[in-house]
Amino acid sequence: MLISNLGEVELIKRISRQFPYQGEGVRVGIGDDTAVLSPLPDADRLTLVTKDILVEGVHFLTHFLTPYQLGRKALAVNISDIVAMGGIPRHLVTAVGFPPDTELKTVEEIYQGMGELCRICFINLIGGDTVNSPRGIIISVTLLGEVEEKNLILRSGAEAGDLIGVTGNLGSSAAGLDLLMQEVGEGKERDKGHASRFQSLIKSHLEPPLRLKEARKIVQSHLATSMIDLSDGIIKDLGEIARASQVGAKVYLDRVPLGPALEKASSFLGNDPLEYALGGGEDYELLFTLKPVGQEKLKELAHEFQVPLNIIGEITPPEEGIKYLDKEGEERNFSRKGYTHF
Amino acid sequence: MLISNLGEVELIKRISRQFPYQGEGVRVGIGDDTAVLSPLPDADRLTLVTKDILVEGVHFLTHFLTPYQLGRKALAVNISDIVAMGGIPRHLVTAVGFPPDTELKTVEEIYQGMGELCRICFINLIGGDTVNSPRGIIISVTLLGEVEEKNLILRSGAEAGDLIGVTGNLGSSAAGLDLLMQEVGEGKERDKGHASRFQSLIKSHLEPPLRLKEARKIVQSHLATSMIDLSDGIIKDLGEIARASQVGAKVYLDRVPLGPALEKASSFLGNDPLEYALGGGEDYELLFTLKPVGQEKLKELAHEFQVPLNIIGEITPPEEGIKYLDKEGEERNFSRKGYTHF
Repeated sequence: MLISNLGEVELIKRISRQFPYQGEGVRVGIGDDTAVLSPLPDADRLTLVTKDILVEGVHFLTHFLTPYQLGRKALAVNISDIVAMGGIPRHLVTAVGFPPDTELKTVEEIYQGMGELCRICFINLIGGDTVNSPRGIIISVTLLGEVEEKNLILRSGAEAGDLIGVTGNLGSSAAGLDLLMQEVGEGKERDKGHASRFQSLIKSHLEPPLRLKEARKIVQSHLATSMIDLSDGIIKDLGEIARASQVGAKVYLDRVPLGPALEKASSFLGNDPLEYALGGGEDYELLFTLKPVGQEKLKELAHEFQVPLNIIGEITPPEEGIKYLDKEGEERNFSRKGYTHF
Repeated sequence: MLISNLGEVELIKRISRQFPYQGEGVRVGIGDDTAVLSPLPDADRLTLVTKDILVEGVHFLTHFLTPYQLGRKALAVNISDIVAMGGIPRHLVTAVGFPPDTELKTVEEIYQGMGELCRICFINLIGGDTVNSPRGIIISVTLLGEVEEKNLILRSGAEAGDLIGVTGNLGSSAAGLDLLMQEVGEGKERDKGHASRFQSLIKSHLEPPLRLKEARKIVQSHLATSMIDLSDGIIKDLGEIARASQVGAKVYLDRVPLGPALEKASSFLGNDPLEYALGGGEDYELLFTLKPVGQEKLKELAHEFQVPLNIIGEITPPEEGIKYLDKEGEERNFSRKGYTHF
């Protein structure tokens, strides 16, 4: 059934079913033009607000992602922004545009993908606008979160001498995207088989990880001095920490965690795995800095993590800039510099 | 200059200049992926959240509105949602998509329109995403506000016997839109001259009013029992109050305020002015209910208003439904029922 045959009112009813969780703190939720939130339980809690807009053909291609994956990812990347501040996601407001000839199934599955994460993360949908967008799907997500004053972590707290830590393996998502692109690529040699061979990389791109628990453990240990989520690749995101903290950085390339799948896929794709790991975006792992005295404690903490945790470098004085050093101590430059829109 | 020649970083710098106001309550503002807001000053303050997405060709046509008017309107309609709850707008997060061949001037003027309202209303821009949208401009606005517990007003508080009040003249915006449509209409008789004759109606459509002061006076007087902003026309919006409050309503058609310009334009357009006033949307006036004892006090209050204030009907028991009655007490039906997206 097409959504144009179902009508707006019935469509909104169907969507609401994907969001059964209505937790604390919501006085007026979905169904009104404006949501009303109760005061936060403690006076020391800060409100976090993040927002993204995803445009079909620019941020996503519907033949790469299932509708479920699209909805999930649209919310996951915003959860990532909240947790990288040390916070907990709480309230979701969406605005989604669909062409009128969109299948109802597609719409329901997009909201299912969001709804699933809402259930897992105890997020309330407090408002949702569903509009006509004749020229492609548009998804705008606003996510509100909260963080205790003492657990707030910013990009600006890094100091010379701090170590640089990272969760997970890097570059998987960017390599996964290249594999998807090559499968549908024009003028390139096609290899329909590699999707199944490198399933884990493709999955990293389509279903970014959630690092809520890891982020909360890192901030609650009070070992970290700054944190950011890796949405644009280390080159750009470590650059953000350096800019905000007014520091430089040294990254030891042999310590950058590359998974075995990335090494194989890079060889297949004829690229350097480090290009993916440093310049590729959308890993949604955590990049953070910590005082050297915290290193041992962090290792203990990491046993409870579901992902590896690695120290890949250190923060330096601002005048030293940001350097990527190979085993021989030689500086290397990378061609991928992250995505810009214009 | 096209924005594709300017680049993303420089573009964001230009945009930031339109938003010099950085007031209280913002710990981390624009420039980070996530904004951090300080706790509200009093424990009894509630947070309000509203969101809209506007799609070129669906919600607006760029040959009707100037870029300045577009930016202004995108924010004004969200301010309207916050003030209709009795609240004060505080923090703005935008996400705007532009085709890469958009003139820099257009982008700057859209943000100027928003920036102007931010200055007037003391709203902080706390986050803004500017992305590529190859197939037309998209504007998504999320606006946060606050309201004291005692001033919060909902749609659900109306009771049988309450009077129905409305600010301003109604129908101007819908008639203004019809005039604009006729000017560019295909297959219709064109009349290039009427735009200047009915300037005030067209302006109502392009530059919706702000009713912050009026809304605050209404809620602070504690006379009103429910309130909504007229975004979709009385038929739909009074219907929302009736549904939320589980009541019926009687509207006396001869009391519905129609401006003289609307009467003239309706005669020119060959339409019934009441169709515009009741079924047409986007007036962004306030529709509210109040206890009959409050009527005299409200009249006094209205002297301080910049717009007329009229009592147009009363709330009835739910079983009586919603009735629109002419001078003779006959019920009338209207063909315009407000906009639906699918």
